[in-house]
Parts: sequence; C-alpha cells; structure tokens
Amino acid sequence: MPADHLFRNSIRIVIALIAFGLFRIDLVVGEDSQRPNFIIIFTDDLGYGDLGCYGHPTIRTPNLDRMAGQGMRFTQFYSAASVCTPSRAALLTGRLPIRSGMCSDSRRVLFPDSAEGLPQEEVTLAEALKAQGYATACIGKWHLGHHPEYLPTRHGFDTYFGIPYSNDMRPCPLMRNEEVLEEPAEQATLTARYTEEAIGFIKAHRDEPFFLYFPHTFPHVPLFASDRFKGTSKRGLYGDVVEELDWSVGQVLEALEECDLGDRTLVVFTSDNGPWLTQSERGGSAGLLREGKGSTWEGGMREPAIAWWPGQIGAGLVSGSLATTMDLYTTCIRLAGGEVPSDRVVDGVDISSVLLGDGTATPREHHFFYRGSTLQAARMGPWKAHLITRPGYGGTVQKHDPPALYNLEVDPSEKYEIGEEHPEVLAAIAGLIEQHREELTAPPSRLERRVGAGE
Amino acid sequence: MPADHLFRNSIRIVIALIAFGLFRIDLVVGEDSQRPNFIIIFTDDLGYGDLGCYGHPTIRTPNLDRMAGQGMRFTQFYSAASVCTPSRAALLTGRLPIRSGMCSDSRRVLFPDSAEGLPQEEVTLAEALKAQGYATACIGKWHLGHHPEYLPTRHGFDTYFGIPYSNDMRPCPLMRNEEVLEEPAEQATLTARYTEEAIGFIKAHRDEPFFLYFPHTFPHVPLFASDRFKGTSKRGLYGDVVEELDWSVGQVLEALEECDLGDRTLVVFTSDNGPWLTQSERGGSAGLLREGKGSTWEGGMREPAIAWWPGQIGAGLVSGSLATTMDLYTTCIRLAGGEVPSDRVVDGVDISSVLLGDGTATPREHHFFYRGSTLQAARMGPWKAHLITRPGYGGTVQKHDPPALYNLEVDPSEKYEIGEEHPEVLAAIAGLIEQHREELTAPPSRLERRVGAGE
Repeated sequence: MPADHLFRNSIRIVIALIAFGLFRIDLVVGEDSQRPNFIIIFTDDLGYGDLGCYGHPTIRTPNLDRMAGQGMRFTQFYSAASVCTPSRAALLTGRLPIRSGMCSDSRRVLFPDSAEGLPQEEVTLAEALKAQGYATACIGKWHLGHHPEYLPTRHGFDTYFGIPYSNDMRPCPLMRNEEVLEEPAEQATLTARYTEEAIGFIKAHRDEPFFLYFPHTFPHVPLFASDRFKGTSKRGLYGDVVEELDWSVGQVLEALEECDLGDRTLVVFTSDNGPWLTQSERGGSAGLLREGKGSTWEGGMREPAIAWWPGQIGAGLVSGSLATTMDLYTTCIRLAGGEVPSDRVVDGVDISSVLLGDGTATPREHHFFYRGSTLQAARMGPWKAHLITRPGYGGTVQKHDPPALYNLEVDPSEKYEIGEEHPEVLAAIAGLIEQHREELTAPPSRLERRVGAGE
Repeated sequence: MPADHLFRNSIRIVIALIAFGLFRIDLVVGEDSQRPNFIIIFTDDLGYGDLGCYGHPTIRTPNLDRMAGQGMRFTQFYSAASVCTPSRAALLTGRLPIRSGMCSDSRRVLFPDSAEGLPQEEVTLAEALKAQGYATACIGKWHLGHHPEYLPTRHGFDTYFGIPYSNDMRPCPLMRNEEVLEEPAEQATLTARYTEEAIGFIKAHRDEPFFLYFPHTFPHVPLFASDRFKGTSKRGLYGDVVEELDWSVGQVLEALEECDLGDRTLVVFTSDNGPWLTQSERGGSAGLLREGKGSTWEGGMREPAIAWWPGQIGAGLVSGSLATTMDLYTTCIRLAGGEVPSDRVVDGVDISSVLLGDGTATPREHHFFYRGSTLQAARMGPWKAHLITRPGYGGTVQKHDPPALYNLEVDPSEKYEIGEEHPEVLAAIAGLIEQHREELTAPPSRLERRVGAGE
C-alpha cells in the first residue's frame, strides 16, 4: 500500500522535526484506515523483574518476549502511583492523581464502601478517542468507582466486561456494562474470559478505529490461574498466573495478525504498580529495583513496558527514555488526530518521538513520585531526590532535608546516596518541585468519603 | 554441505537418545572438519543482572543480546566458587576446587606472594583438547599461579597473552607466554588488545580445531575502559567497561562469521563469580539475586551464561536447567571426541543434551556451594539448603541446624525459608551432603604457602 507507506513516512518526518524542536505542529490524520488502533494491556501488581525479557530466571513469557523482540522494551517507564486506583486514574486522564482527587493519604485506593469515583469532569482517554470516532471497550479491572455513575460506561467506554475493584475485596462481582453477571466472580476463569472478550472486540471492530483498555485482574493477590496453567510454571502459582497473562498477550497479538491489523495497531503492555512484596512468594519481584508496591522507591513505580506496532516501531529496540503511563494518554490522542484538553494541566507528554524513533528521544525530563497526596520524590534526568522515604507497607517515615539524592542510571537499586557531591542537582530539583507546587491545584480527595457517612 | 548436515543430524539424534536415557554411548567424532571449535569467554566479577538480556536497565549489551537471540541463555548456571582462583581452577579442571587444593579458608585466592598454583597432576581442558589435536590459547587473566611452572603454557595452552593475577594486585604485568611484556600492564588497552589477539588466533587456526580460553580482566575493580568507551554509557565507568566487553564479544562472533566458522564453533560466555558489591557503584549487580562475590548466596555464584553455536544450538532458547562451569569441561571434551580422565572424580557433567536440545534436559541435579574449603550450601533440584550463611565480605557467620531451606525456582531471591514445611527435602539433601563428604579427598591447599615462607 504505497499511500499508507507515504503516510507512515510523513509521520516519521513530522515526529523527527518535533523531536528536534524545529516545528511544533499537531498531527492531522485523515481517513479512518490510517488512524492506529490502540490496545493498552495493564496488569495488576506485576514487578519490574517478573518477565523473561526483564530477567526473571524461572517465569517463562515467550509471548511478551516476542512482543519485545518485535517492538520496543522500556527500562525507565513509570506508573503515576504505587497503588491501584490513583495509578489507573492517571493512565486514563493523563494527569497526576493529585489533580483529579483520585488519591489520599488515609485511604490509598477505593474500597467497596467508598462513595465516589473518577469525577465526570475528567476527560478520559476513552472519551477523547471516542470524540475522534473510535470504538472503545474496557475489559478487566476498573477500580475507579463502582457506583453506576462512575463505571466505564459513564467514562467513554462503549462496553465494559470485568470486575469493578480489586479481587481481594469481597464480594467481587463480574460485570457486563452496568449489570452484575456473577457474584462473586469465578476468578480462575477471568484471564481466559477477558481474553475471549478482547479477541471478540478486536474482530468485531476490525474495520474501524478502536481503543481497547485491557486491565487484567492479576497477578494481584489472591492468585488464580485456570486449570490449563495451574501448577505448570516453575515459579509456583505466581508464575502460573503470569504465564497465563503472557498467553493472553499472545492471543491478542495473534488476533491482530489474523485480522491483518498488526501494522495499524499500537499495543502497549505495562502494569499499574510494583510487586506486592508483603505477600511473600505470592507477590512478584522488582528485580534489581528497591522495594515494591506502595512505595516511592523505584520498585513501587517503575514498570515493565513493551510497545508493539510492527512497521512503525522498530524491532528489538530497548529504550531508556523516561516515560510514564500518563504519556500514553497524550500520545494516543495525538496519534488519533485529537487534541488533549487545553483547559487543565495534562501531565502526559507525547512520546511518539521515542516510539517511532530509535528509542533515544527524551520528550520527558522529569517525573513526580506521590504517595497518596504527598509528594515524596522527584526525578529529573538521571537523578532522583527523595524528600520522604518509607517502605511500601508499614515501616518508619524518614524525612530527608536535604533530600536523599541518587543517580538512577548509575545506581538503579538506589543504594548510594550522593547528594553531598551534587548540591547543584539538589538545587535544580528543589526548583522543579517548587514550580510544580506553585502550579498545582489539588481538589478534595475522592477516595475518602464512604457510603452512608454523611453522603 | 550435505555430509556436514548429515553429521549434525546424527549428533542431534544421538543426543536425543542419550537425553531420553535410551542409550549411553560415547560420541565418536571423525575428521577435524567435523569437530567443533570451543571459545570460552570468561568475565571477571560480572553480576547476574548486568547484561541487557538479563534485565539491566541502563547497560547496553547489543552483542550479547544478539548472541542470546541466536543461541541459548541460561538462567540457573553456576560457577564453582564465589571468588576468582578457585572458580577458574574448577572451570579448567572440571572439578570442585576442593579436589585440586585450589581453595582455602584463610587465603581465598592466589596473591603475588603466593608460592604455588594449579598442580601439574590436574588435566586441564586445554590439555585434554590438545590430546585431541586442538590448537589452544589462553588470552586474558590467568590467576592459577604466576611462577613459570604454573603458567598457561605449562597447562596445555600453546600460547598465552594476558595478566597472571587480578588487576588490583600490584604490580600487575602483561605477559606473552612466559615473558613479561610490560609492567604494570596498561589496563585501559587490555580489552582491545585481548580482542585483537583473539581474532588473530581465530583467523590463524581457521583450518584446524581450536580452543580459545578468553578470560577477560574486567569488570574487576579497578575499572578501565579504552578512550573509545570511557564516558559513553549511562551506567558510569562500570557500564563503559561492560559495554566494551560486549563490543569484544561482537568482534569475536564477527570474526567467526567472517571465517565461516560459526556453525562449527561453540562459544560460551559466562563469568567467574558474582558482582563485587563492596565496591559500591564500581561493582556490578546480581539483579534479583541475594548478595554477590565472595558469598554462597545465589548472587555470589549464579552467573549470566550464553551459549552460541548457530545451526546446532536453537535460536532464542532460554534454559533453566542446572549447569555449571565445570560442565563445560566435560561437554567440550566429549564433543571433541575425547574422554574425561577416569582416574579421578570429575564433577562436570555433559550438558550437550541441554545445549543441543530445547534447553529442558536435566543432566545435572545438584551443585555444592563452597566458601574456601568449607561446604556452606547444597542445591538439589529446585532446593537449596544453607549450612552456613554470611555476607561475601565481613559480616557474621550464621550456622544453620537444621539447614536453611529455600526453593530457588519459586523464590530466586532466597527470601522465604521453608525448611519446616519440607523435612523430607532436608533429609534428602543431608544424604546428598553425606555422600559427597564420604567420597571426597581433599589435598592440602595450594593457596596458603607464600614465597620465602618455609618454601
């Protein structure tokens, strides 16, 4: 298809120009057939070190390894929070959770007794893409509000199939759109049923642009694998569960290939936060990173991330560029020919220069690490300064003044504090934080109010 | 080449039969052209987590990643000691260091004032292959005795170019055969000069079977990179050094391909022991493994290991089979048509069923973890029992009775002791250890006597 080819080359040139700062323009994308589909596969509590291509010795992930071999694997990709609800809010809004009220120091996620959810005023990625004519579906765990007015169907998704909050919150129902299908959900079948739904959605929408948000229930504890995978991995039940997720990814990629959609579908695989270390061997591994879920040490927020788009993303590339889940918001909207909302702060940056280049572009230069509504650390280039450190769960709060400074590219395990040698870096990060605090407007938390409690 | 092809298929069939336990035969290999060449690239203090394909976020190893993509990457491959001298003795003799006297509790490696070295009675891999008509060379760090009678040229190597002991031992000379070329060695040029020598050796011996033992000087501290690599990696000087080693591997593979030797050369890349953690950011990373160099925790002895032999070893395979550096001894001798010495205990097992199969064969079922001449732990299948634990350097000695038991396939980071739940496993490992101690003959240590001290 020469026209398609020409289009792709044009995109590359435009991206290159933007990357070099020569032009600042918005992509204008024409007919449906040229706009990419988007699939975001979002696992729950998967650690940085839990995939074969990220170095796990006994978990086998041939499908994700193949996805990485055909696409781009990120090594410094972050979620925007170290626990579930705020992380998901950030992915779908392109904004730090503090801006939407989707975080709290006292109740870190939504619970079955929570009264609220993601505010209607937020423009979700689904809404933004729907406005561009995309078919949209959410298949999997939502956790942004389970009362009807907060469900995916009220936030831009045409359809929804999945569980409304974490699988350890009882009773956890399985829903289709706004109806409960079964309660409690039969968890051992969830990954397979989600996958079947996902393939059905892809096939049904093969002739129009679509956005599939596919947030898996696992490997969040309690772990469940289907009969086909249970007891089959060397890594125990956790490995069985991750290997079933890997199988699911393979099914999705195969469905795309069968439908001849590979070269016009951007698939991104990543996770909401780091491994739940307090669950011992039922939790995952952050590999060489420090700490896990719940923490603003790297293990809590740096995630495995793989982007796949054959013909557009080079094969076998490894990118050390800073990137976050929020950047997927901005990038997908831009690639779809849309505009990110201009009436609010959007934290996501367009990382298509990374994705469509060789993985070395640096559109993002910093990232903020919140625990609840408290800013605990900030990253600037290779540097990370911690104002406050503490384990993901329990432990003591340690305040650092001056902040504890690490060079994450030299010292990814955050072992060697080097602030004394780099006062100029500490000063620069202090400036970055001050600027961030000055422009920040934080609405009241949406995670604290409970049903019946002064509603 | 149909004859060659037929031969390769025959080897595969024989291996498969051996793997299935149907036959136990020795390989008989005919003309020179059919016997594989062997190259063992052995780095110094490289950690399990230090390569791109083992999950390091900022060290770039495209050549090793390619080698893994074209060959087999091991995830449970061990050295036979956690420090330099005994580890090298084991690789070259196929025997635990305790059997050759090449270990000691008081002096863990050879020093410039050491009086002895690897005993003449040992049959090195070079000697065994030389007996099969192989040309042999040692290029790099020896560390098995620097007095003339212990040098590589007295242990089966036709030629030697390198340093006789560690690069932090002063003055560290560079030698050719038995002559000192320069003293101290110009360390920043070593990797490049070794590589040039290696390529020269390969090209000079393209028409006869050869064995190149290529033990690099780095990334042992003090770190030196050439001007070309210094300051170029994101991981600081350690990354520069590892990336130069990666470049060297690429040069070797390219030379083989240029000489059309790829399909008849088995190249194995691994390291002598884990990362030197007490060197802070100048030391490497064991990834998700516990501890490092000097320790019998996994970080001290589990190594990155990649085997490459296009057409014989399947592409992109990952093997979780237990294997050790000692197995290279037995495997190479067998593949060369030779016999391992039958007048002594050889610990190496033939892992060609792993290499030439799909990576799932299990010719090795256990491994012993010595610190000096003290057995501290034993592995049996997925289980590892520690009799004694302590950090690689300093720290307190902890004796465990009953032993501290871990399932390394479920818990590779050795976090969750589970002996109480598995008394039958502890009993089986106790039996294995008893049997090992009964058959063990340990000669006096060769590492303790100093020059002039009662010599």
